[in-house]
Amino acid sequence: MMKEAYMDLALSLAESTIGQTSPNPSVGSVVVKDGKILGMGSHLRAGEAHAEVIALQQAGEEAEGADVYVTLEPCAHFGKTPPCANLLVERKVKKVYIACVDPNPEVAGKGIKKLEQAGIEVEVGLREEKALEINRSFFYYMKHKRPFVTLKAAMTIDGKTATANGDSKWITAEKAREDVHKQRAIYDAIMVGSNTVKHDNPRLTTRLPQGGKNPIRIILDTNLSLSPDANIFDDEAPTWIICGKDADTTNFKAKHPHVKLIQLQTEKLNLNDVLAAIGVQGIQSLYVEGGSTVHGSFVKEKLFQECHWYIAPKLLTGNDAIPVVGGVAPENMSEATDLEIISLEQIGSDIKVIARPKQEGN
Amino acid sequence: MMKEAYMDLALSLAESTIGQTSPNPSVGSVVVKDGKILGMGSHLRAGEAHAEVIALQQAGEEAEGADVYVTLEPCAHFGKTPPCANLLVERKVKKVYIACVDPNPEVAGKGIKKLEQAGIEVEVGLREEKALEINRSFFYYMKHKRPFVTLKAAMTIDGKTATANGDSKWITAEKAREDVHKQRAIYDAIMVGSNTVKHDNPRLTTRLPQGGKNPIRIILDTNLSLSPDANIFDDEAPTWIICGKDADTTNFKAKHPHVKLIQLQTEKLNLNDVLAAIGVQGIQSLYVEGGSTVHGSFVKEKLFQECHWYIAPKLLTGNDAIPVVGGVAPENMSEATDLEIISLEQIGSDIKVIARPKQEGN
Repeated sequence: MMKEAYMDLALSLAESTIGQTSPNPSVGSVVVKDGKILGMGSHLRAGEAHAEVIALQQAGEEAEGADVYVTLEPCAHFGKTPPCANLLVERKVKKVYIACVDPNPEVAGKGIKKLEQAGIEVEVGLREEKALEINRSFFYYMKHKRPFVTLKAAMTIDGKTATANGDSKWITAEKAREDVHKQRAIYDAIMVGSNTVKHDNPRLTTRLPQGGKNPIRIILDTNLSLSPDANIFDDEAPTWIICGKDADTTNFKAKHPHVKLIQLQTEKLNLNDVLAAIGVQGIQSLYVEGGSTVHGSFVKEKLFQECHWYIAPKLLTGNDAIPVVGGVAPENMSEATDLEIISLEQIGSDIKVIARPKQEGN
Repeated sequence: MMKEAYMDLALSLAESTIGQTSPNPSVGSVVVKDGKILGMGSHLRAGEAHAEVIALQQAGEEAEGADVYVTLEPCAHFGKTPPCANLLVERKVKKVYIACVDPNPEVAGKGIKKLEQAGIEVEVGLREEKALEINRSFFYYMKHKRPFVTLKAAMTIDGKTATANGDSKWITAEKAREDVHKQRAIYDAIMVGSNTVKHDNPRLTTRLPQGGKNPIRIILDTNLSLSPDANIFDDEAPTWIICGKDADTTNFKAKHPHVKLIQLQTEKLNLNDVLAAIGVQGIQSLYVEGGSTVHGSFVKEKLFQECHWYIAPKLLTGNDAIPVVGGVAPENMSEATDLEIISLEQIGSDIKVIARPKQEGN
């Protein structure tokens, strides 16, 4: 096997755990000597062993003189576990292939330096693009201290998300809806506006045949206007409510002792402030499920990094139907927010498009 | 080569002439003996030689005992040219492979019968699906005496086709727009509403680097309200106007002697009547380019057979923007018109979806 194939294996291991390692990144590692795999593993959960440690453990004493493939720069600091770079030096490995550098300021090149100083060969950048992709939320958060925001929408092929009276069941078919649940399991948190709660009364949990982590449910509710009976107040998953400065929080707290309440300093909710506030709370990735007005604000303020668009092959028609992205249109078509298509596929009978704003970094 | 491969070749020949043979179907033919192609050809233009005739001419005397592949049942009647079935009999071919039967009542099985009576083996149905696809407009027209209607739309990925003040330049990029011009060359006629003419002043011609036939431009203009300076009144292509019973046709005819005027018997334009009227005039295929209101009517009355949807990866936002399909929405999402995706592809930076109404025949 070529070095690219070993790194691809390590990347597959990393990819398999996306969503379950937060706030840590997903990392995979493979230990190889004389064309034989001696150990492999993936970091499974924050606080537990890092990928290299698992792979080296499996390799045992044979790790001496071996090549180690790891999808992210080995850490050089004492966190919840001792530094992996130290372990690689102790085990006297021959060469370490690193897909990408860790942007975490506590690591950022220090892991590589430590290896090189110990005389270990290091090759950085093998399959870098894929490695950056796998942990894009983590890297974005490290750089900006705000969550990586994905706008998710389901619409008819003529851009509608509900009839004039709000009926929206169902736009997409089962396979697309299952894909949405897979995404929910990956993101730290899910966000909707209060109108969506009032209209659809969603549970916003992950419902998959094999299970999956529930995201934190974050609701934008300026005046704490939601009914206490709303499904998002059940105990299936944590719920956070973001409200404005004039909201009656005393009353709310009495009713909902288990709900985390984040009160902003302004009357209306400014999305910039919202993202900063949940960033402080450690939310690295946010899946925004709308509705129309919330999506309109995120797009207008250009506060998103990715779009997941589910397009159902049906025509609702109607100037009076609810458009998938609301708000107020700009004056000219040239002011529309340009996206770049990352992937285009058919999921069951529906279409899924993943796109990102053009000319914006991760 | 297998028989399927020879028929595929014949189908490719047929496909290459879609749009240029109307009112005739596109047909291809290949003559084969002992694994060698002796002749091949495609019907090029109404009034000229049929595909089998061209292929048999090329084969010359060697056609005796050969296999002939033809994508549509050979004709058995004297039209502008003598019957092809007779020619196949005269040339003493051994076997004729026919992809699909001709629905034209003057042919419909008679060609096959003539061949069989002369002792020629006949196999019908080889690659039938593809053959029906190539001439779907022709077959639809033969059955219904109305044009096969394709709705074409270009929209942002949030379903908008213009800003509130009507600006729509440009939604899609160059490659998608070029694809639209390819389609214009294929259809007999193109249709828009009068608002589109007033707003965009389109030319509705085929503009391709290598040229291409212009479709007939058909405008729905109930009250003959268009400015005489509109581009659709230029002499680049024929223009037909459809108006209601109260329109002042005398004045219009004096101004536009070269425009064909079709006046319906009702005050407002009923799309059923419109399609019947242009069907009588021999329009087999119609490419409806909108706008929003016209599309809304076609969808509401379920008077279309295909949708060509060009989706640009950009978000316009806005409840006030013009939705790609207007009109009045039904009460419930379940009343939306279900489509089936026929193809999904990326054209340059845009997405193209071809879809057809579910459970409707061609």
